Amino acid sequence: MINVRADEQELRILREEVAQITEKIIELLALRNERSRAIGQLKRRMNVALLDLNAEKDLRERIARVAQRHGLDPESTQRTLTFLFQESLRQQSSIEDREGPRITHMDIFRKAKQLESSGQKVIHLEVGEPDFGAPLEVHRTLSEAAISGYAKYGEAKGLPELRERIIEYLDERFGVRRSPQEVLVVPGGRFGVYAAAAALLSPGDEQLVIDPSWPLYKQAAQLLHARPIAIKTTLEDSWLPRVEDVENSLSSATRLLVLNSPNNPTGAVIDRRLMEEIVEVCRKRSIYVLSDEVYMDYCFTEHYSVLETGYEKSLMLMSFSKSWGMTGYRVGFLVGERAMIDRAASVQAMLMTCVPEFIQRAAFKALEDNETPKVYGRVMKERISEICKWLDSMPVSYMRPRGGMYVFPKIDVKGIDTAEIALKLLEKDRVAIAPGTAFGDYKDHLRISAGTSSEEIAEGLRRLKTYVDSYRRPPLGVKDF
Amino acid sequence: MINVRADEQELRILREEVAQITEKIIELLALRNERSRAIGQLKRRMNVALLDLNAEKDLRERIARVAQRHGLDPESTQRTLTFLFQESLRQQSSIEDREGPRITHMDIFRKAKQLESSGQKVIHLEVGEPDFGAPLEVHRTLSEAAISGYAKYGEAKGLPELRERIIEYLDERFGVRRSPQEVLVVPGGRFGVYAAAAALLSPGDEQLVIDPSWPLYKQAAQLLHARPIAIKTTLEDSWLPRVEDVENSLSSATRLLVLNSPNNPTGAVIDRRLMEEIVEVCRKRSIYVLSDEVYMDYCFTEHYSVLETGYEKSLMLMSFSKSWGMTGYRVGFLVGERAMIDRAASVQAMLMTCVPEFIQRAAFKALEDNETPKVYGRVMKERISEICKWLDSMPVSYMRPRGGMYVFPKIDVKGIDTAEIALKLLEKDRVAIAPGTAFGDYKDHLRISAGTSSEEIAEGLRRLKTYVDSYRRPPLGVKDF
Repeated sequence: MINVRADEQELRILREEVAQITEKIIELLALRNERSRAIGQLKRRMNVALLDLNAEKDLRERIARVAQRHGLDPESTQRTLTFLFQESLRQQSSIEDREGPRITHMDIFRKAKQLESSGQKVIHLEVGEPDFGAPLEVHRTLSEAAISGYAKYGEAKGLPELRERIIEYLDERFGVRRSPQEVLVVPGGRFGVYAAAAALLSPGDEQLVIDPSWPLYKQAAQLLHARPIAIKTTLEDSWLPRVEDVENSLSSATRLLVLNSPNNPTGAVIDRRLMEEIVEVCRKRSIYVLSDEVYMDYCFTEHYSVLETGYEKSLMLMSFSKSWGMTGYRVGFLVGERAMIDRAASVQAMLMTCVPEFIQRAAFKALEDNETPKVYGRVMKERISEICKWLDSMPVSYMRPRGGMYVFPKIDVKGIDTAEIALKLLEKDRVAIAPGTAFGDYKDHLRISAGTSSEEIAEGLRRLKTYVDSYRRPPLGVKDF
Repeated sequence: MINVRADEQELRILREEVAQITEKIIELLALRNERSRAIGQLKRRMNVALLDLNAEKDLRERIARVAQRHGLDPESTQRTLTFLFQESLRQQSSIEDREGPRITHMDIFRKAKQLESSGQKVIHLEVGEPDFGAPLEVHRTLSEAAISGYAKYGEAKGLPELRERIIEYLDERFGVRRSPQEVLVVPGGRFGVYAAAAALLSPGDEQLVIDPSWPLYKQAAQLLHARPIAIKTTLEDSWLPRVEDVENSLSSATRLLVLNSPNNPTGAVIDRRLMEEIVEVCRKRSIYVLSDEVYMDYCFTEHYSVLETGYEKSLMLMSFSKSWGMTGYRVGFLVGERAMIDRAASVQAMLMTCVPEFIQRAAFKALEDNETPKVYGRVMKERISEICKWLDSMPVSYMRPRGGMYVFPKIDVKGIDTAEIALKLLEKDRVAIAPGTAFGDYKDHLRISAGTSSEEIAEGLRRLKTYVDSYRRPPLGVKDF
């Protein structure tokens, strides 16, 4: 009885101490936030970026020493610092700073669909969906599998036969031998990106992305409360990252680098040498590489896969949407080291159970067809040429794509905002084009998709040309004095 | 020039202040962690639970006052406290405490599949998949849609025709009028749970779950770094939560309550009155209710939907897997207030684009068929009766299910561990049954599924009876003195 009361009293005392320590932490946090806001104001006056990775890095190192002295474990320290950095950024960003709702290609797509449902005809140069459709044999296989009732729960990683076939495909294509346990059949490339990120990222971890980039890469990291860090590339650098920029963007919190070659939206292709250099940087720091290679068959030069580097911490993502026109089937695959694929498979089992078996059987059929991806690749190359021909007659700068299904021109008109152009073009001229802001800090760029027929592309670009030309001319009645 | 240097100096000074404040916070955190560990030791000695919601609640209120005094905004305060509480729990749990890898029904399922692939025959009483299969008309519709090439990207929320049909279904079934904008077609019930949770939960938010529960509810919260809080129900209470237990589990961080009726694994059904009382508690505190009603057609009494309460913060989840045997199709729907459905749809658009159109067309066809769900419901009721008949001859206690496709008996043998039983039964007798530990703190329970034929069920239960009976008898050669 006395012991119990002594214990209870001790618990009360300890709890009171914890409460008092908590109060002090909160007081210090209020003070820290106030200073963070002052730094934010100062940075705005100095016109420097709010996020300063070097300052964070210095502070991380300094604090690590203090933490060690006080016996705080490194994991707690890392978590706490990440938490405090996020709070600082929140305080530094005033409401005006916070990124407003950016117009993305999805917004333009939705708006275009609305116009269409009210009876208007729209030319779609905004979507990432080729108009090809799946080969007839694939449709037929799906149809037969459906009638045969192949619709039961199966292994999360995918049908063993399909994974075996994927292994063969990787061998034929890249000369790499992988095991079926290193393959995860995913319900589309998007889910593949998420599953890989979920397998790897904890809150506060950093994920490097090469901008301009498909928005999903950053969104997936944010959904996991990790932090996307953009490495900006430019038209002048042919949209390729410099190895030193990758190196300088690394911190002790970096866990994953996302690559995308052929690239959406720029059409840049990472060649063997650059891929090996980037992988080398990651290897030294044990950083994972997720390489999104869904446009590999729309490559007008040699495609080099991350799997060919032999780097064990690399994950390769492929989808059936582009190579076989199977967009609405929602199926692809992720390849990588067993442990990571197992973790990604757990996430998939949790959220999806598995990809429907009839779809997996259709995917199996697609892999027997080597011809369709080649045909689709050739058509895409011709369409891209057509787009470039039109662009050559406009006041724009662009890099001729080496792959992919988009061109990413810069409109050479001062002070232009392509989000505005995209909206006006859609409303007035019924042409849907994605603004550059969807892919990072590129408000003078547009992404033109080659997903539709040559005729539509020609008509869409004719309208774009008329619009851009009119933009350059001074308005009527205004003379140049 | 001078101004620039002054600014730079000011920035340096501010940064140094931030660094020093950060050092102090880290020192305090080290001290706080040390006290937390002491509390953990004391609690273990006193044999009380580590997680103490009341202590947390008191501290939250006390700190809120301090924070206000120091001008810290309530959101920052909430985030910080949640962060500190998580750290405390980490410190209080010693390695032995941390939950080891629990054996779930999925582990048993995988192990059973392994045995089968080595040529063994296994009786499956562990899976949540009925053996019914989809109606022929549904297979046929899928097949025709596949041949017609209905495989393009579509709206994230689902085909407008399908959502219109779902609206009619809800009206016919529950007499509620909803709008198509309040419906999201999801790729299976699992994804529906995740999409709803992702729309609602921020890190540190609390989600209430009624135990025993399908593991996914907690897993989805954890994937979002929210915190699942279990309300334990017992066989003695007919597996229903008391309203006061729900009330007492609420904190200022509670955001969502998950209900599942008919229940997996217990077969409990929440009637109109209890549903209304629970909803009333949530309404007072503006807490969302996610009601998983996928077993609604396997209900042997009246099924009452959360939608019938009219509570605007309720979300209802339904799937085609059980009612029409469409497990491997991966399709279901979520219904709720527009703002939440829009958020869930954004998450789905991000991770999946949409559910394949040919699957949605098959789902549309299923909704025209009112007969199949009734037939499947009747068969399930008969099988449950069969299971109960067997259980009546064993040393077990159980509640006769009022719905669902499982029975959740307690094995009345002292010190029994059903995870061990489940493994032995599978290895020796080739019967796969889910251990109670998969669904919460229920190690003397088993979940028996009625997903397989009556013959298999009878044979599986015969083997279980033999096993349990032998468990009661003293081992050979040991006499009872």
